[in-house]
Formats: sequence, C-alpha cells, structure tokens
Amino acid sequence: MNKDIWRKIATAIAGTALIAFGHVPVAAQSDGATPQSALELTINDGFEGKDAFHFDWPEIRVGTGQYEAGPTGATVIHFPKRAHVAMDARGGGPGTINSDYIALGYPAAELDAIVLAGGTFYGLETATAVNTALIDDRKRSGRWDNIGVVMGSIIYDMGGRRLNEIYPDKRLAQAALRAAKPGIFPRGAYGAGRSAIAGGMFGCNTNSGQGAAFRQIGDIKIAAFTVVNALGVITSRDGKVLGCYKNPGWPEELTPQHLLGASPASMDGDWNGTDMAAAEKRNTTISVIVTNRAMNPAELKRLAVQVHTSMARAIQPFATEYDGDVLYAVSTGEIESGPGTGLVTAEIGTIAGEVMWDAILSAVPEQSRHLTPQNEPKLTNDEIRTAIGAYRFGTDHSLRVWHDGGQIYAQSRGPHPVFAIAADTPTQLLSVGKGLFTVPGRYPFAIQFSKDQAVINPGRWAQIGKRTGG
Amino acid sequence: MNKDIWRKIATAIAGTALIAFGHVPVAAQSDGATPQSALELTINDGFEGKDAFHFDWPEIRVGTGQYEAGPTGATVIHFPKRAHVAMDARGGGPGTINSDYIALGYPAAELDAIVLAGGTFYGLETATAVNTALIDDRKRSGRWDNIGVVMGSIIYDMGGRRLNEIYPDKRLAQAALRAAKPGIFPRGAYGAGRSAIAGGMFGCNTNSGQGAAFRQIGDIKIAAFTVVNALGVITSRDGKVLGCYKNPGWPEELTPQHLLGASPASMDGDWNGTDMAAAEKRNTTISVIVTNRAMNPAELKRLAVQVHTSMARAIQPFATEYDGDVLYAVSTGEIESGPGTGLVTAEIGTIAGEVMWDAILSAVPEQSRHLTPQNEPKLTNDEIRTAIGAYRFGTDHSLRVWHDGGQIYAQSRGPHPVFAIAADTPTQLLSVGKGLFTVPGRYPFAIQFSKDQAVINPGRWAQIGKRTGG
Amino acid sequence: MNKDIWRKIATAIAGTALIAFGHVPVAAQSDGATPQSALELTINDGFEGKDAFHFDWPEIRVGTGQYEAGPTGATVIHFPKRAHVAMDARGGGPGTINSDYIALGYPAAELDAIVLAGGTFYGLETATAVNTALIDDRKRSGRWDNIGVVMGSIIYDMGGRRLNEIYPDKRLAQAALRAAKPGIFPRGAYGAGRSAIAGGMFGCNTNSGQGAAFRQIGDIKIAAFTVVNALGVITSRDGKVLGCYKNPGWPEELTPQHLLGASPASMDGDWNGTDMAAAEKRNTTISVIVTNRAMNPAELKRLAVQVHTSMARAIQPFATEYDGDVLYAVSTGEIESGPGTGLVTAEIGTIAGEVMWDAILSAVPEQSRHLTPQNEPKLTNDEIRTAIGAYRFGTDHSLRVWHDGGQIYAQSRGPHPVFAIAADTPTQLLSVGKGLFTVPGRYPFAIQFSKDQAVINPGRWAQIGKRTGG
Amino acid sequence: MNKDIWRKIATAIAGTALIAFGHVPVAAQSDGATPQSALELTINDGFEGKDAFHFDWPEIRVGTGQYEAGPTGATVIHFPKRAHVAMDARGGGPGTINSDYIALGYPAAELDAIVLAGGTFYGLETATAVNTALIDDRKRSGRWDNIGVVMGSIIYDMGGRRLNEIYPDKRLAQAALRAAKPGIFPRGAYGAGRSAIAGGMFGCNTNSGQGAAFRQIGDIKIAAFTVVNALGVITSRDGKVLGCYKNPGWPEELTPQHLLGASPASMDGDWNGTDMAAAEKRNTTISVIVTNRAMNPAELKRLAVQVHTSMARAIQPFATEYDGDVLYAVSTGEIESGPGTGLVTAEIGTIAGEVMWDAILSAVPEQSRHLTPQNEPKLTNDEIRTAIGAYRFGTDHSLRVWHDGGQIYAQSRGPHPVFAIAADTPTQLLSVGKGLFTVPGRYPFAIQFSKDQAVINPGRWAQIGKRTGG
Repeated sequence: MNKDIWRKIATAIAGTALIAFGHVPVAAQSDGATPQSALELTINDGFEGKDAFHFDWPEIRVGTGQYEAGPTGATVIHFPKRAHVAMDARGGGPGTINSDYIALGYPAAELDAIVLAGGTFYGLETATAVNTALIDDRKRSGRWDNIGVVMGSIIYDMGGRRLNEIYPDKRLAQAALRAAKPGIFPRGAYGAGRSAIAGGMFGCNTNSGQGAAFRQIGDIKIAAFTVVNALGVITSRDGKVLGCYKNPGWPEELTPQHLLGASPASMDGDWNGTDMAAAEKRNTTISVIVTNRAMNPAELKRLAVQVHTSMARAIQPFATEYDGDVLYAVSTGEIESGPGTGLVTAEIGTIAGEVMWDAILSAVPEQSRHLTPQNEPKLTNDEIRTAIGAYRFGTDHSLRVWHDGGQIYAQSRGPHPVFAIAADTPTQLLSVGKGLFTVPGRYPFAIQFSKDQAVINPGRWAQIGKRTGG
Repeated sequence: MNKDIWRKIATAIAGTALIAFGHVPVAAQSDGATPQSALELTINDGFEGKDAFHFDWPEIRVGTGQYEAGPTGATVIHFPKRAHVAMDARGGGPGTINSDYIALGYPAAELDAIVLAGGTFYGLETATAVNTALIDDRKRSGRWDNIGVVMGSIIYDMGGRRLNEIYPDKRLAQAALRAAKPGIFPRGAYGAGRSAIAGGMFGCNTNSGQGAAFRQIGDIKIAAFTVVNALGVITSRDGKVLGCYKNPGWPEELTPQHLLGASPASMDGDWNGTDMAAAEKRNTTISVIVTNRAMNPAELKRLAVQVHTSMARAIQPFATEYDGDVLYAVSTGEIESGPGTGLVTAEIGTIAGEVMWDAILSAVPEQSRHLTPQNEPKLTNDEIRTAIGAYRFGTDHSLRVWHDGGQIYAQSRGPHPVFAIAADTPTQLLSVGKGLFTVPGRYPFAIQFSKDQAVINPGRWAQIGKRTGG
Repeated sequence: MNKDIWRKIATAIAGTALIAFGHVPVAAQSDGATPQSALELTINDGFEGKDAFHFDWPEIRVGTGQYEAGPTGATVIHFPKRAHVAMDARGGGPGTINSDYIALGYPAAELDAIVLAGGTFYGLETATAVNTALIDDRKRSGRWDNIGVVMGSIIYDMGGRRLNEIYPDKRLAQAALRAAKPGIFPRGAYGAGRSAIAGGMFGCNTNSGQGAAFRQIGDIKIAAFTVVNALGVITSRDGKVLGCYKNPGWPEELTPQHLLGASPASMDGDWNGTDMAAAEKRNTTISVIVTNRAMNPAELKRLAVQVHTSMARAIQPFATEYDGDVLYAVSTGEIESGPGTGLVTAEIGTIAGEVMWDAILSAVPEQSRHLTPQNEPKLTNDEIRTAIGAYRFGTDHSLRVWHDGGQIYAQSRGPHPVFAIAADTPTQLLSVGKGLFTVPGRYPFAIQFSKDQAVINPGRWAQIGKRTGG
Repeated sequence: MNKDIWRKIATAIAGTALIAFGHVPVAAQSDGATPQSALELTINDGFEGKDAFHFDWPEIRVGTGQYEAGPTGATVIHFPKRAHVAMDARGGGPGTINSDYIALGYPAAELDAIVLAGGTFYGLETATAVNTALIDDRKRSGRWDNIGVVMGSIIYDMGGRRLNEIYPDKRLAQAALRAAKPGIFPRGAYGAGRSAIAGGMFGCNTNSGQGAAFRQIGDIKIAAFTVVNALGVITSRDGKVLGCYKNPGWPEELTPQHLLGASPASMDGDWNGTDMAAAEKRNTTISVIVTNRAMNPAELKRLAVQVHTSMARAIQPFATEYDGDVLYAVSTGEIESGPGTGLVTAEIGTIAGEVMWDAILSAVPEQSRHLTPQNEPKLTNDEIRTAIGAYRFGTDHSLRVWHDGGQIYAQSRGPHPVFAIAADTPTQLLSVGKGLFTVPGRYPFAIQFSKDQAVINPGRWAQIGKRTGG
C-alpha cells in the first residue's frame, strides 16, 4: 500500500474507516454497543485480486468471512466427501473440539470440516455451528452412520490488540460454510487470520494473517493452510525475518539469529502486565495439511507430527507455552497408498513441510506504515473542537481527549493503555494533517476524530470508539 | 405412572401429547417441519417434585432445559468462581471440547462450566454457546487472564430412537445457563438425559435419564452428576438389573450375571442394521464428579480415572466401543489438601465411586408400560377414517396407514422401521380402545391418530407425525 | 534350607499353610547377603498339580520363575509368531516399556512378548532381558524388519511386605523365556504374582497371586492372565470378598458393600507411615487379555479399555492412585475380522471381561493360617538359648531377641517394624510348640529359630534372617 | 583427521584396527562369535582431548561407554539428588521406559537417571540395568518412597550399518553409571552416539555422534545433550549442511534448501530394500535438556515440546516416521521459579533451543575419507594370497574374495550387500597400496586382509570379519 493510497483512504474517512478488499467494502463498527447479532457480516464470496490464491482440488471447499468491526473472522475448510484426519496439538494453549474421538484411530473417513477462527475459546462456536449447519441443511443426519464430525481450533486475537469483544460466531461460520467454494483461498488478513499478529516474543508485533500453498507431484496433491498468529518471528527461506516493528539499533536485514543470539536481552520482557505487550504474547498458529494419498491413522499422525515440527524453521521460536499451536493432517484418500504407488509418508511429509513453509510466507499482509507528524503544526479551532471529548471502545477501553496550549492530549481512562495512549499519563497527539494525528513510537499509530466517533488506525485494522461525552 | 394416569393422558391428547412434569406442560412437536429457532423451549426453572434433587453447595449452579419436541436437552453445570478439572475419556465415541488444553495440567483453576447434552456431535453447540454467553453477559472477557473456558460432552440420542433431527442448541444452552441455580438438579428424563436409554447390549432398551447424588464427610463434599445412556444394563448394589424390556424366558429377578453368563446368546446381535436396534447400540454415559478438596492436576486425573472405572459395577458392560463415555473430575478447591487435612485422594475416589453409583441409580425414570389390546375389537368407521393416511416424522421417517377387512395396518415408507412398524411388511395396529392402538412386542408401543397428526407413544417420549396425505 | 529342613518345617506347622508346589521345593534365602547372581533360581518347568491351569492355544507360550528367597518372580508370555497389541495404563504408578512405540498404532504385528514381574521398577529388567535373549538366541536380529519388541510391567512387592531387596532380573527372565511352553500357566503365588497381596485399602492384606482363564466361542479364543496385587478387595461373582484378614467385628460373609458402605471408617488410614501398612498400600494389578480374532489398532485399544474397566467389579476399589494398573490387549490374528465373522469387538470385550474375572478369582492362593499359642507355655532352656540373639533380614531390617522371666521378647532394631514385631517396644513371642512362636494380631505371624537363622512365617512366604550375634 | 594421520593408521593396521581415542586403545572384535559377556568394555573414564566437553554443574553426572567391537555404546546421565522430568516422544519409532508413570505429572522429583543407548530396542537393557545398579549399590531401595526411577531411549544403529549384533547391555551400562562424573561429556562418536549417522533421507549417510552444550544466564543453567542419529541432514546456523557424502553434481556448499527444493528427486528412494540404504533410513535423535530452574510438570512439558520442536532447524527433515525421536526435559530445581525470578518458561525454552542447536552441531565427528586407488596396480602374489578366502561378519554377513587375471574380486554371500560389495555380482577391489583396497563410490570404503581376518573400514568404525575358509 503506497503513501498515496494510504492518504486517499485516510482522506476518505468520514466517521467510518472504509476497507477496500475484494468487492465488499464494509463499515467497521467496534464500538462495543452493537450485539453480535447486529454486526455486519462479510463473506469473501466472489473474492478476487492479488490475495486470492487458486488451486485445483475439487474435494476441498473453503469459505471465509469476517466481522470487520472486530476485525475477526473464521475459515471453514469443508470436505464434502469426508476425509481422514489426525491432529497434533503442541502449543501451550490449544482450543480444540472432538480431538478425543479422532484420536481413537478408527479406519473410516469421518471428518466433514475443520473450522479455524479468531476469538480465542469463544470462537469455537464456529466449529460447532458448522456441524449444526450440516444437519440443518440435511447434508448430515442423526443416523449413527451419517453423523457430521467437525473439528476446529482458534487463535487468540483479543486482549489489547483490538478494543472490543467481538468474536466469530454461529451466524458467521454458517454463512462461510454455505458460501464455501473449491479452489480459492484468500491469503493475508482474512477469515481466521483477520487480526493475527506475529513476533511478539521480540516485540515485533507485525500484522499477520492466513496463508495457503499447493503442490502436485505426479498424482499426489498437497495443500497447506495456516493461520499464523505466532509468538515467534516469521522467517524466509534465506533466513530473514519477514515483517517486524524493530527496536532502535536493530539491523536493517534482521535475521532470527540476530534476535536469538542476543537473547534474553532481545526478548520483550513484559509477560504478566496488563498492557498490549502482555496480550501480544498470547498466540497460536493453527494449520491444516491435506494430501490426496490414502493414509492409515498411523501414517496421518506421522504426517501431522512431521509437518508441524518442520514449521519451527518458518516461525522462530515455535510451539512455546504462549502459543496454542494445532495442526490437522487430512487425507482425502483419492490416491491409493502402498508400495509402488509413489512416495512414502516421510517423503510426503518432507515435501509437505516445504508447502507449509510457502503457506506461512504467504500469510503476511502489507503492514501498517508509520505516519510523519508535521513540524510545528498549528491546530485549527475546528480540529481541536472535533477532537476533544470522551470515547468508548468496546467494553473495556475508553479515552479522554483534551487541549492545552493549542495542542491536544489523550489519556486512557481505564486501567489499560489504548495502543500508544497510556493510562497513567497524558500522551500528546501530533498532527499529520487533514485531521489525522499520530503518536511516534515503535508501532504505527493514527487517530482521527469526527462528530460521533474516534477512529484509531483507520484502514485495515481500524478500531472505532463511540463518543460518549463532549 | 399408574394405568389411570396413563389413560387420562391418552384421553387428553387432542393432536398434542401433553407432558406434565415440573410446572411446565409443553406441546411436543417433532414433525420435522419446525426449524430449531421456532421450537418451544422448556427450562426447568422453579422445578420441584419427586425428581428434584437438592444438595447444599453454593459453588455449583445447575441449569437444565429441553426441547420437548425432540425430546432432547442440555444440562449446564456452572462454577461461578471457576474450578480445576481433569477429564477421562474412555468410550469409543466421545464428543469433547477443549480437552487438549485442560490436559496440559496448568495449576490454575480455569474451568467455568461443563455442559452435557443430547444431540450427538451436533449437541456440542451447547458447550460453545455457554462460553459465548459468558462473554456476551460480560462475566468473562477477551483479556488473556479472564477468558472463559467451557468443556462439554454429548450423548447419542438420535437415530431410530426418536424420529426427528432436533438437537440441543445455542439458544437452549444459553437459556439454561442463565436460569442456573445452586442446590437443585432434576433427576430422570430431563436435560441431557431427556432421551437417554440403557441396556441396548442385551436389547433391554429401557428409558434412562440423568442422575445426581451428594455426600459430605466432615468438611469434604462430593457431588456426582451423570447422564446414563449406556449400552450396558444399570445394576443395583444388590446385583439386580434396573429396568429392562426382557426377552421371553428371562428371569423375573434379572441380574447382570444372568445376561453375561449367557453371552453371547443373550446379546442383541444386530450391530450394523439400519433399524432401531442398531441405533440403540450407539451410547454414551457422561459424568461429572466434584469435590471441594483442593487437588493438583495429578490428583484430579487420578480421581477421574478411579471414579470412571468404578462405574463398571453400576453399568455392565461399561466403556465399550459403542459408548462414548467421558468423566470430568472437578475440584472447587475450597478445602485445603495436604497431610493432616483428612482423606487421601484414593479414599476420596473410593467414596466418590459410591456417590456416583447412587447418582446412576437415581437416573432411571418410570418406564413406559405395555398396553393390552382389546379382544376382537370392532373399529368404528370414524376410528378407521381418522387413522388412515400418510404421516411424516422428522426428515427420515414416514408412515402409511390403511384399512383392510375392518382392521387397520401400517407400514413405514422409508428404509427404516418406525419403532414397531416395519418397513418391508404391513403391521396390524390393534385397538386398545379410545382411539389408541398398539403393536405387541418386546417394547411398549402406542399410536393415536387425529385430523392433523399421529402421535406415537403419547406421554413422556411422544413422537408426533404430521399428516401429509389422506 | 536343605530338604530336611523343608520337610521339618512342613511337618512342624500345625495351623499354617503347607506349601507344596510343582516338584521344586526350594530353600528360601532372604538374608540380604546373597547377591542376585548367587540366588537359587526356580523355573516352573514340568509344573503340574492343582495350580496348573491348562489351555489349548499353541500361539501363546508361558514361562514363569521365581527367586524363592524373595520370594518374587516373573511371568513371560511369549508370542512366537508375533502379535498385535494395545495397552491401557490406568493406575497411579505404572511401570511400562515401549508403550510409546506401540501407541503409534502401526498396522503390523510387532509384539514378541509381554513380561510381568515383581520387584517394582527394578523388575523391568526382566522385560529388556527377554528382548536381548531373543537376539542372543538369534530369534530376532538387528535388521529393521526383524527387531524384537517386548513390553512389560511390574508390581510393587517390596517395602515392608518382604524383608529383602531381591528383584526378578535378567537371569531369571531369560531362563523363564527359554523354558516357556504353550498351554500351561501356574495359578496362585508363582511368577510375577509370587508375593502379591490384596485388600490393603481396608487392611485385608490377603496373599494373592497370578491367575489365568480361557474361553472358546466357536472359533474365537479368549485368554486372560493377571497378576492381582490390588489395593482393593477381590470380589466373587455373588458379591463376596475373597480372602481378607478382618478387623474384629466385621461380618463373617464380608462383601465389598460392607466395607464401602462403612467408608471412610472401614479404610485403613496409615498412608504415609513407614510400617508395613503404608507399604501394603502400594499396589498394581497387571493383566493380559488375548484373542485370536484379528483386530485393528482401534479395536485392540477398545478391547483393552473395556476389559480393564470391567475389572472394577472383581477388584473394589480399582485403578486408584496407589495402584499402577496396566492391561495389555493382544490379538494373534489367527481368525479374520469383519462383518459376518462372528462377534463385534464390544461383544468380545464383554465376554473377555468375564474371562478376566475368572482369571482374577483363580489368582488367590491358600492363605496363611493363624497359629494358636499354648496356654502357659514353659520354654525349655534349649528353646530360649536357640532363640535369643540378633538377626538381619535383607539390608533394612534386623531383630533382637532376648529372654526375661522365662519368656522371650523381640524388637526390631531398625526404624521399621518386622511384621508383627514393633520397632519401638518389646513384643512377646508366644510359643506354639515345637520351636515355633507367634504374635497374636490381625495377621498370621510365626517365627522359628535355629543355630544360624530365624525363619519368619515358615512356609510359602518365609523370610529368613541371618544370625548376626549371640 | 588429516591424510597423514589416516595413512599412519592405515599403515599401522596389522590384522587389527587400532583406535586411538581418549586413552583407551581397543581392539575391535565384530566377528559375531564373541558373546556379549566376553566383549571388551571401554569406559570413557579420565577421558580428555578435543572431544571432551567440560561444563560446571555438579548435579549432573555423566558416564559413557562402548563396545568398540560393535561399535555401539551407552550414555548415562545421572542426577544423584533426583530431578523432575517430562518427555516428548515425537518420532515414528521411539523406544522408551517408564514414560507412562512420568506422564502422570506428580509434583515430586523422582527421576534418578536417563540412559541413552545404541542397539535399537535391545539397548533398552541399559536403562533397566542402571536402575538395578542403584538398588544393588544400595543407593535406592525397595521402600515405596525410595524406589529408583530410570528412563531411557535408544537409537537404531544396526542393520546394514554395522555387520554384527552387538548391543549395549547391562554390564556396559552399570560400568558407565559407576564411572559417571560431573562436568565432562565426550562429544562425537562415543557412548550412545558411537555408530550414529545422519542424512539418510538424501543418502548423505555421514557419521554422526553425540553432542553437548551448556549456557548460564545469571543463575539459570541450561545444558543440552543429544545423540544425533537423524534421517535428516544436520544444518549449521548459516544454513549449510554439515557433512554429507554427496551425489555427483551436488553443490560444493550444500544447503538443506538445495536438497528440499529438489525433492522428491533428491531423496534416496530405497525404503523397503534389504541393503544398507534401507537400514540407514531407520533413525532416531534422542535428547536431554536440563535446567536448574524449578518447573512444575506443565512447565516441564512445555519446555520439552518447545525445545524438541526447535530442533527442526538443525536437523532437516526432523521427526519423520523413520525417526524415533524422544526428548527429555529435566529440572534439577535448584533455582526457584515464579514471578520476579527471571525468565519465563517460553524464554528459557527459546534459549534452550539455541543450546540444543549447539549440542547438535558438536555431535559430528571427523568423517571417513575416500581412498584413491593406484593407477594400474600390480598385485603381488603375496597380496593376492592373503586376500582370497571367505570371511564372516557377525551372524548375517559373509564375504567371498577370489582372484582372476591378476585382480581380486569380492562378493557378499548372503542376501545383503556388505557395504560397497554387492551380493549378486562380483565387485573388483582396487589396491590403494600397502595391503589396503577400496571400491570407488558414494561412500568411502576400505578393506584390508590378514591371515585370520578382513578388516573393513579400518579406523574408527572398523568391522572385522573372521576368516572361515581358505
């Protein structure tokens, strides 16, 4: 996103952050007053553009959707002919459903869908909702040999990182399922990856998202899907960190070894605080690897373990106590297994690890940019009048803005900071021009005021606060 | 339920089976045309009577509710101050949620609620819904140290045993949570146990339900809750089978040893068929044992394993491939543990096994009775005219009724039988009088016709079919 | 102990259980001075008599042996054509080997043998020794497709219950493997069950052992082997406790419900002390269920879980924190599985639970008897001279015996009691006649002195102390 | 090892490969005729030199030893004051002992020792032997609160990679335990790593070994020990493959991405054959990470998972079906945990992952070198006469050598090749001079004949065949 586009979007805002992606511009409403049932729903249907990843595999249908007001969303991976599945939960805070049943290792294909979602444990409602949609739509029934089985996992995308309690829910998930299509997957800040971040271990806090990749070797197909919400930093194949809001003095071409070699000094130490930093350290990467090669339960489990382990190269560190990492290994069983039919499981797993690495790299969206404050700005009376007041974001956060000596200041009224605006001391808001203000610091921060609301970080990850007082 | 009451109910039915339990008479609507969102909701609020079990423990709040039209329901056990939990899944088809997280053994108390439900895997929607109600009601939030954690398990109560696809859902579970109260638990065919059965291994197919028991030893409290939907037979402490529709020739005072000693002959062999018998063999007993003694994760796991194992005395056989048995061991942590503070874990577990046995025995509701057909009944033209026609039950079952030589006959139009009415051959309906018909056989069966519908087994477990043709 | 002494002891005992097993009378040497490598080895080869259980199944070879000086032993169950296996560990202190490998669920038959042993964790040497015997004997090799796989588990039979540190070891296990034969199993206090006890939860402390049972239904064979070293009481099918040294006032026809109904008062409360009572509370029941029906890994796991759970009827309580219970489910795969080939897994599991119950009941050997002291005995000078002195048992226990006023007294010199002889106060030894003394109490106790040693409980579970001083 | 040293060793050989490491030159005897009990034992006691790694931590004692005739060995890590432990088994073929007990998560420190060994499942005898040594030496006893607990894992180092069935056994392990010392660890081809290899996935088949590393941050100590017997290639921090016998055409500076990017073509495809290639694909990396920071069972498990996962960077691919990877996380508990006492578990885990990477890199010994055959060599009659004959290696391999036209040829007499010498076709042996012959190919190969024997690959990994015929 170049500066002009940024400015254009910033200019365009009139009380609402317009988000242009796919063909569905939506109004972000994260004011906490709107109940879940009244939230505007965005389903990435007919989605195209550079973030649209295409792959050729009719047995896999993908549906994704978001509540832009969160923003948060869900990603439904539906196997209409059912599939075999094994799971590997490795992180310290996994959210899962029906994993005990699947772990029993029955030889039948029983999986209908895997649902990935934001919203921490609340987001698991999406997984159960996809299953009830299957019976509501009479695709599955109550007969013992036709019962729907849906698994699902969630990422932590709440706390200080967005200022509301919106979670992906039944309505969103069922809409995503019903809109699911084969062969297309939105990469970046969509679906379950809508508010993902990465690199909190070192305070990088880069925006992340969901990724996908596909490879075919002869008859064998391998697809990887992942939602990268990782405590560790995303790492390219040539050993570079992909996206990081750096600390001063860090190298231009940052590598994981720069960070790891300087540990513990390079680590961001605030683990138990109540500010954003502590929240950024609650993470999860949830992933799905699919092959069309038939696999028995033991093979599928090995595939899950090997591919999940391989991800430690692309995300460093990986599988920590503050991640809730889960990986699903799925076989659609279209290609027979056995001697003479091609690659052994260890070979498929090795290649699948590379496909997963591709998927991880594809997850990172364009990052928010730092804004440059004007030199010696003179604020107009109108600018000041528009800004001052009190604003509420969701349930837990609110802001007071006032002026003093021709400059405006803000302070969080709750116990927690509101991004760059501290709770215990005034923070000066510096004008960028055209009604936009910033606070310099490690992370980009913008705020814009209007009659009814304040919009923080207008654009992709806007947070809207409702004016509650003059 | 004596014959008079039975007749009264049978007489009373005019298109609807009135069910008098607690103070909430509801209309059963299992016609398959009603969407979940339009189903009438029954919450057992203000529930009293012989089925109401009282116990003194403010830290445990119980809410239960049903869709009588299923019938099926959910039971919410809410720990408002949170609790520690361990899980033991043992059966061959468990439905679970968040068990991987809980298995990590963190020392903090994190459990908010356990939800037990009917509806097989679809019923898991109740567990996720209870968690989203917690954030919707602002009892929990998105801050990483205040996230709601809800677990839940389900029983299989669909297939041929009720003729519709109704499942306990988000609306039902949230209503039950919000109506939860301490100290009271409805025992029998309520909540998650609404359509439970037991004894399918030997074809007993007795109605079962949910049970509860409580014991206090000094300061130590132990409560047991269970939904007994077991393949095995429920067994009293003096070794008698509790409830069984017997095969001809079986002893009056039936014991598990009669049945087990005569195996495999005594076993009901139809495991893969499509009729009710096959469906009755998909089961699950889901249980919760709670103590106020503080326990570390290892102790809780031991308590779970010991109590779950002990249930093999009260349910024979137990933990088979066709059960999905799950037990939750919970500690509210009100009483300190450690040497000198009373009973060791093995002792608490031993006593808890006895409390659980009590809970199991309390689960069994009054059984349906066999009806006696009239000798040489003469059907009136009106009776015949009212009966003949086609009826649809839910999505999968429908019935045709016709007359021939002054008698009426019925046949299932789908591939599956409708209880005693076969799919491939006509079954004669014998008049009991007053518009009620029966089919003699191992299991009680009644059917009553009116202008709009046919009611099978009017009373507690009534199934209503909508007339679809003359 | 030479043959004469053996005969003498046998003759002398009046009121004590005579021990006649196999054709191998052995000298008990539990003086602690003998290294493991010098212990006399007893292999139950050519074993016959009432304890010899015969069954027809060539694919299962059983070898058992003991160090009578412990006494403790090992039981090797060898599958020469290999078998499939699943394991269910349920108790709070299991000892296992290679369970992680087997849990992966590969479809190949890989198990060579299961070794059950006494000696707590030290006894696991028997399991690894059986595997090294397989390569030493060139029955298995180092080629990746011909590697031996042996599993094994152990019981706790040390602490205060025998006064030495002897454990079943490599030499014993390899000898038992090499002597293994099909179709015969010694039931009672042999092999791994040599020093088993049962009922410590209630202080019963009855001698137990190892059991076996077999049943054939059509082509399907089921064998059960078990070493019953249980905290709970062994229970007959008609609900009676099998063997228990009772507390005064307990009913003649004792049932588990007598004990459980009176809990916690009926429970023996000394869990952390250093005397025998605390040691008797460390237990384990280890079991093997075998079928010839082919089973996939999921079926085998279900069989293991169901049968293990069913044992809670025969042992009450079962699977406590102080048990280390493990069950192996094995399939030799001689009979095909699948529809139409007979019983489903749940049916086999149910019948197998009954066979296992038979095996448990068969494990209990004839109990030691209480001796009746003489009224007003006059000890001869020779009797007194022979008795007085100091005696050492194993490493941890020693005894001082002295005379006072024509009577003899004993006291343990270490911190722990020596069975009925306390550590902190003199205990009078009462003459039974013929050089045998007793101490009245809950448990039978006998002691006999000679020039070189003191023999406690001469007979089946004799403990020999070496004279260390005049 | 430079060329001169290599030549010197080659020259020095007169029927026996002398191996100079530490101060213990031993004679390799891998002729298969020697029973385990007669094998010469090498304990690395007083070991010094470049392979000796020193670290300051008295609570960890390390003992290592080998049967050079294998060569194979064991590494004992003894915690004399006991430690807490968690295990993470991830590969497809783990060998483990007592993992079920440890997984129960009791809060007490119970681990006495971890034993790592060669010899595939047979090598587990070393782990049980260390525990019986503890009771034999009266360091542990049979009292329930003083029972020794030893865990252990093994690597696959048999099959075609060494031509005998020697395994590390009870005698070796007990000697290693008794020689254990704090602060020193032999890195490279010693102990359990004596016959480790790496890189079989791509046919690299480089010699590997065991490694160690240590780091102290303030009061917190972290030590890593690992036996790298990996299917994947060992990777340096700057992304280079460490040691690989390359295929023609592979880049000089080989990276994992060269190999993975060219997969599946780069993969060595012979998975089910009977030759060395198939055997080289059975692998295992077994590792131990130790910290002195007190950790509860949940923290230890997280540490195990995170560090194990991080190893996927240093070994690519890692945790495949053909690895049996196991990692033990141990806490000696010397430093208190809790807020304010330094690093959180995720930070310790991240740093520990780096320490483990160091340990892995330190494991690789100097590689064998290719020998250059002479141009147009003229063999003397004496050289020919010495060479021709039949030789037996262990149980499974034998060789026939003959001359034809002034040249000598060899052929394996069994079904399997003997390294570079095929089984189905003659292979010409080319003279290097001084009685040494070679066969050109991907892997270095040398053979030298004397009156009694043939020595293959004289030097560190020599294999000796006994002459069985003229």
